[in-house]
Amino acid sequence: MTTIKDSVHDHIEVAGVAADLVDTPPVQRLRRIKQLGTVALVYPSANHTRFEHSLGVFHLADRALGHLDIAGKRAERVRAAAILHDVGHSPFSHNVEDLLTRRTGKAHDDVDELVADGAVAGVLDDHGIAPSNVARLVRGDGELAQLIAGELDVDRMDYLVRDAHHTGVPYGTIDHGRLVRELTFIDGELVLDEGNVQTAESLLLARALMNPTVYSHHVARISKSMLRRGTERLLESSEIDARRLRRMDDHELSVALRTHDQSSEFGRRLAERSLYKRAVWAEMGDVDDDLIDADHDTVRDFEGEIAADAGVAEDGVILDVPGKPSMRESTTGVVVNGEVRRLDEQSTLVNALQVAQREQWRFGVYAPAGHVEAVGKAAERVLGLETEGALISEVNSPGRYASLADFE
Amino acid sequence: MTTIKDSVHDHIEVAGVAADLVDTPPVQRLRRIKQLGTVALVYPSANHTRFEHSLGVFHLADRALGHLDIAGKRAERVRAAAILHDVGHSPFSHNVEDLLTRRTGKAHDDVDELVADGAVAGVLDDHGIAPSNVARLVRGDGELAQLIAGELDVDRMDYLVRDAHHTGVPYGTIDHGRLVRELTFIDGELVLDEGNVQTAESLLLARALMNPTVYSHHVARISKSMLRRGTERLLESSEIDARRLRRMDDHELSVALRTHDQSSEFGRRLAERSLYKRAVWAEMGDVDDDLIDADHDTVRDFEGEIAADAGVAEDGVILDVPGKPSMRESTTGVVVNGEVRRLDEQSTLVNALQVAQREQWRFGVYAPAGHVEAVGKAAERVLGLETEGALISEVNSPGRYASLADFE
Amino acid sequence: MTTIKDSVHDHIEVAGVAADLVDTPPVQRLRRIKQLGTVALVYPSANHTRFEHSLGVFHLADRALGHLDIAGKRAERVRAAAILHDVGHSPFSHNVEDLLTRRTGKAHDDVDELVADGAVAGVLDDHGIAPSNVARLVRGDGELAQLIAGELDVDRMDYLVRDAHHTGVPYGTIDHGRLVRELTFIDGELVLDEGNVQTAESLLLARALMNPTVYSHHVARISKSMLRRGTERLLESSEIDARRLRRMDDHELSVALRTHDQSSEFGRRLAERSLYKRAVWAEMGDVDDDLIDADHDTVRDFEGEIAADAGVAEDGVILDVPGKPSMRESTTGVVVNGEVRRLDEQSTLVNALQVAQREQWRFGVYAPAGHVEAVGKAAERVLGLETEGALISEVNSPGRYASLADFE
Amino acid sequence: MTTIKDSVHDHIEVAGVAADLVDTPPVQRLRRIKQLGTVALVYPSANHTRFEHSLGVFHLADRALGHLDIAGKRAERVRAAAILHDVGHSPFSHNVEDLLTRRTGKAHDDVDELVADGAVAGVLDDHGIAPSNVARLVRGDGELAQLIAGELDVDRMDYLVRDAHHTGVPYGTIDHGRLVRELTFIDGELVLDEGNVQTAESLLLARALMNPTVYSHHVARISKSMLRRGTERLLESSEIDARRLRRMDDHELSVALRTHDQSSEFGRRLAERSLYKRAVWAEMGDVDDDLIDADHDTVRDFEGEIAADAGVAEDGVILDVPGKPSMRESTTGVVVNGEVRRLDEQSTLVNALQVAQREQWRFGVYAPAGHVEAVGKAAERVLGLETEGALISEVNSPGRYASLADFE
Repeated sequence: MTTIKDSVHDHIEVAGVAADLVDTPPVQRLRRIKQLGTVALVYPSANHTRFEHSLGVFHLADRALGHLDIAGKRAERVRAAAILHDVGHSPFSHNVEDLLTRRTGKAHDDVDELVADGAVAGVLDDHGIAPSNVARLVRGDGELAQLIAGELDVDRMDYLVRDAHHTGVPYGTIDHGRLVRELTFIDGELVLDEGNVQTAESLLLARALMNPTVYSHHVARISKSMLRRGTERLLESSEIDARRLRRMDDHELSVALRTHDQSSEFGRRLAERSLYKRAVWAEMGDVDDDLIDADHDTVRDFEGEIAADAGVAEDGVILDVPGKPSMRESTTGVVVNGEVRRLDEQSTLVNALQVAQREQWRFGVYAPAGHVEAVGKAAERVLGLETEGALISEVNSPGRYASLADFE
Repeated sequence: MTTIKDSVHDHIEVAGVAADLVDTPPVQRLRRIKQLGTVALVYPSANHTRFEHSLGVFHLADRALGHLDIAGKRAERVRAAAILHDVGHSPFSHNVEDLLTRRTGKAHDDVDELVADGAVAGVLDDHGIAPSNVARLVRGDGELAQLIAGELDVDRMDYLVRDAHHTGVPYGTIDHGRLVRELTFIDGELVLDEGNVQTAESLLLARALMNPTVYSHHVARISKSMLRRGTERLLESSEIDARRLRRMDDHELSVALRTHDQSSEFGRRLAERSLYKRAVWAEMGDVDDDLIDADHDTVRDFEGEIAADAGVAEDGVILDVPGKPSMRESTTGVVVNGEVRRLDEQSTLVNALQVAQREQWRFGVYAPAGHVEAVGKAAERVLGLETEGALISEVNSPGRYASLADFE
Repeated sequence: MTTIKDSVHDHIEVAGVAADLVDTPPVQRLRRIKQLGTVALVYPSANHTRFEHSLGVFHLADRALGHLDIAGKRAERVRAAAILHDVGHSPFSHNVEDLLTRRTGKAHDDVDELVADGAVAGVLDDHGIAPSNVARLVRGDGELAQLIAGELDVDRMDYLVRDAHHTGVPYGTIDHGRLVRELTFIDGELVLDEGNVQTAESLLLARALMNPTVYSHHVARISKSMLRRGTERLLESSEIDARRLRRMDDHELSVALRTHDQSSEFGRRLAERSLYKRAVWAEMGDVDDDLIDADHDTVRDFEGEIAADAGVAEDGVILDVPGKPSMRESTTGVVVNGEVRRLDEQSTLVNALQVAQREQWRFGVYAPAGHVEAVGKAAERVLGLETEGALISEVNSPGRYASLADFE
Repeated sequence: MTTIKDSVHDHIEVAGVAADLVDTPPVQRLRRIKQLGTVALVYPSANHTRFEHSLGVFHLADRALGHLDIAGKRAERVRAAAILHDVGHSPFSHNVEDLLTRRTGKAHDDVDELVADGAVAGVLDDHGIAPSNVARLVRGDGELAQLIAGELDVDRMDYLVRDAHHTGVPYGTIDHGRLVRELTFIDGELVLDEGNVQTAESLLLARALMNPTVYSHHVARISKSMLRRGTERLLESSEIDARRLRRMDDHELSVALRTHDQSSEFGRRLAERSLYKRAVWAEMGDVDDDLIDADHDTVRDFEGEIAADAGVAEDGVILDVPGKPSMRESTTGVVVNGEVRRLDEQSTLVNALQVAQREQWRFGVYAPAGHVEAVGKAAERVLGLETEGALISEVNSPGRYASLADFE
């Protein structure tokens, strides 16, 4: 047994298959993948990695298994899945996942290939665990998969607390100890036991507060868009293909962006935090439905059109269209008066959160500081945006974005 | 200048009128008044006092004044009010306030008499401050009073963080540093500056989560009801009158309850944590409007009737009818796109909180463990409660209240 | 099983004999005994109690038993002793212990009588545990008693962390998780396993830093001396005897001091924090050995003589002669290269701590603010103190004691 | 003014020259240089960077300047130096500094060239500050330089607290708020004001505990030695010279090590945490003075000899000879009875720390796991080490290094 010191959970005891997996290269690689990608450009302390998060997820999974009285091979499979649940992440975590998934057909939780081979497969084999079973758990298939990849999974319990600790933003402070203790299986569904409606709500509220303040902070979104565009240029112009890029780490991508001609401007800007600004920042009601649902190519066409209209280079315009908000956790099951109810049937608050999420949705158009006005006006023309509330002149009005976390 | 070490704000620097006020007996008395009264019977670490809270409120007020660029005599008055804002509290803070207000006509924020006399008046006089001006601020009158006793006051910023620290419940962790910095006066109204809708929401969400988990935990409510009943017996049967009791401290009331015959049973039970149990625990929809709005005497009549019906002693039945929920903070002003808006006009979440508060409202009937069933049935008959969902047999069904914080 | 929320250890799970003992009046009484007595007059947040500390000690003992693989009846006895280890404390913990021990012959860890009777005895009996065995463990007799009352006991692990949390002083932050894991029994001795010399040192260093800053802060010492004198007056002049006083709680003693004539001046002064000041503050080298070793009566004689010489009332002079420093933990056993060594044989640092403790020792003479100079000079004459470094005029020279924690 | 959220100091307000400097590429580069280099291989959460540390140092410097009443241009120079004090660091901070200093003649605090040119020089010029004055402060020249680079500098106050926060090791928890407040200048020397001997001691004790547990943990030392060796190979075999390497960041060096043939084995091993083991681990008394004082070339010769003797490749042996311990902080000035005294004249503890540091000193020989025994024996022969206490067979005996932090 090995004991590892963690800044969030203090001591984490790792044994069995988990201890052996920790030492494999695919897991060690997670030391070089930041948990929050470009969020560190907003919150300078947010340098924590997928590696420490994976240990945290293992730790909470292990405790949950104990409280649920699940032991033996079934438990070991879950522990293996906990350690491995993030090995499929590309550099900068979710930041460039979309563009790689478009090219490779694989999302970050598609780890079949990764665990079926090499050191990981060897360790799983030593412990008599079939890689396919672990991959299934990571993908969210099967009853016990709910612990790792469900509405009540320990993944989000760890990241909320960890992200709060490292950003310094206090909103992620859920009572993870209580959550883990109150988990129970009823008819194959992982739910929270009687008396925990508030506990469940607190988990969703934490996410709802962390979302605009941390995960979707506009500076993090701008940087992410720039990283994505730079990475596309890198894939188009270098010998690096999506399959290989998916297995790189933050260090390698950061260097590759800076050293390849077509991506170097984005690489340099990200390294020096010389970021684009918002030319448009529009609410859902101000944006055409076609744009919200547009596919990648359509968005790229819009960017080209706007750039042409504004008279700037193609890379001088980036559109950032977030997906429609969903809140999977709202279906969390909670026992109320002896029967399992869905949280969104039970909680006024959770329903409000779903509305609030729509209200917080923003469409962005970004451009280099000097071109913001021209690009904003061009975007208005090309996209037919309503004038009010959308234009740069307003969003950047004095004082408006002197947000504490802004740091610009 | 004196520097005081505080477990929440680290170092608090006290100078001027505040430093002199700290040394007066009415402020020192707050060392013997627990911030959360009977909540310590649920959360054993919640022994923090009104004294340290008053220092915390002073500290945040002082910083807010700095950010708002308010100095001189106006600022000193606010600092004095911050230190003095809780000197009007009776023993166990809010727990017995109602019954004393009924008898003395004075609520805890009515401090005119207390500051117009003795050591406090002397200190205020030394610093050229009129006691009546300070009392006015404590009462919430005047523009600057909003800092001490308004929707955005530093009082609640301190207590949320402090109560979280001492109970160990993580939900009160607001970003008080940000809140204090973002305060601004617009047309005489204290509001949060542009970009702080979420900051404002977080303050209300923190309260909404702390409320059922801490402040209105049913064990704290039961204990509070017992304390209130014991105190009434003490007032009825001893030489202690309401005026004098209002100036006692927790120690004195705790001893008085135990040493006077008529109150000693409650005194002993509270000291030994031998508490009444819930005979009825009913939602708002299950309770007649007349009961919800009933005055003190009517409630006492009901208690007598139920006791008679159940065949138990008069003190064997306690009705606990909370006031209708209100959420004053929902009118908090926040600057949005350059104009002040009320939070409840702006925030879906805040509106949901108001509904949620009604849903969390509970009417309770409490009785000694052995009489719970008899009292429950009698209450049902006397109060005409709907059978379903209200009766003891259900609320105490196995597992239902095995809440983590319960400790019974 | 009950789960209790603790501000230090988060969730504490209490079951078996411990859960039943928690509900007994002698343990509930500890809710009304402050852990640090008069230290709260220096650190306003230090209002934590022996009750929460006892739960913490139980929690660490329980985890240590797990790591040591000790189960069954032996473990239950230790758990019972952990919960009960402080029931023998008099009001204000150690503050008035000496004077009660002088009168009753019982120290706080002499709990034979307390556990052999009443509710506690009943619970122990229900669980088949002999009260005498538990009392023995509390007293420090027997191999497993080392966990509760030895050099490496969980008692000090809990109080260092808890006192740091509540005072806000950061020096008590030991790695208690590691300490508990590294405990091991070798030849019947509880020692720290290989590789833990630094871990052991950190425990002693934490104490060494907490001592002058918190436990022996001069304001806490002055208050303690006043409390002791007031309590003596109370015992001399009222119907309360030492046996009864030993079973009172802080609330009762605080009220009794204020309501009895002979002690009321001390009671009032403590309640209003109107404290004596130092008339003399002398290092060990400046004080005669006879004084350091003087018994209680001799000290009282000196006080009378000094009062007479200074022309003040008898209660206007208090001598405070701390015992010679000892450092029991320096004999802590640590495994080094496979064999158990005493820490003070192994650690240069620990030896230095012993010297440092002697250097920090101070003899104090206290008097009301107005009499400080007269009493200081009289003490000098009567006690034959060297002039230099001892007199009030020096110790209170401007700036000298503007210590952060001072708050005077 | 910009406000930045920091995980340690909460909100950091940056204005004036500091705010402009933060945006320059040399300061932004510090985002990609880990504060503790290879320590992250022992403590997985220790991923904090020189960037956030620099903000922390600025913050404490700014507060110290306020307490010391230093304003205007003098203060701005100190603030600039605080932000810039680490721009001279090479990748992985101190880990490869020696070998670069040997080749470039420049240590990390030699920043004259770096601030005299480019964006930094531009900003300094805009604010009327001479780059040479800032470089002088960083180097530790001049009275105010003591705040940035002296025995009592804010640099170590920040890093102790920050390293504790991120590693999870509790020993660095000094009272930095108190330290900053108690700084004062006496006769041009920065000292701690009256009453702060313990405060000063606590700073040294924190370092003394963090040292073996964190900074000099043997796994961090092994990794550092491997990084150093790999970097030497990189410099010998690639187009990268020392001057260029000094300006790279962690990402670039990590990639370069892995992609160049001669260093790739070390690059891979570090990336996969496949580390060398200790073949020898010897105390100072067991090692010849000639070895302790040996220069770089002599050490390399010894390595070659041992490798030959053991029959392993040249890179299969690494000697790790730490410098003789020094404790610069022991000369810290503290005011005692009105005069400045050196801490080591005043404090028994500090003297003990100096001895303890010698005792903790260890000489290491490292080799790949399979060659540990052969290399250990060869080292013994070549270096004439005393057999006892030095050999691998002992240091790796079962259980001996099952240290909590070990994670191997």
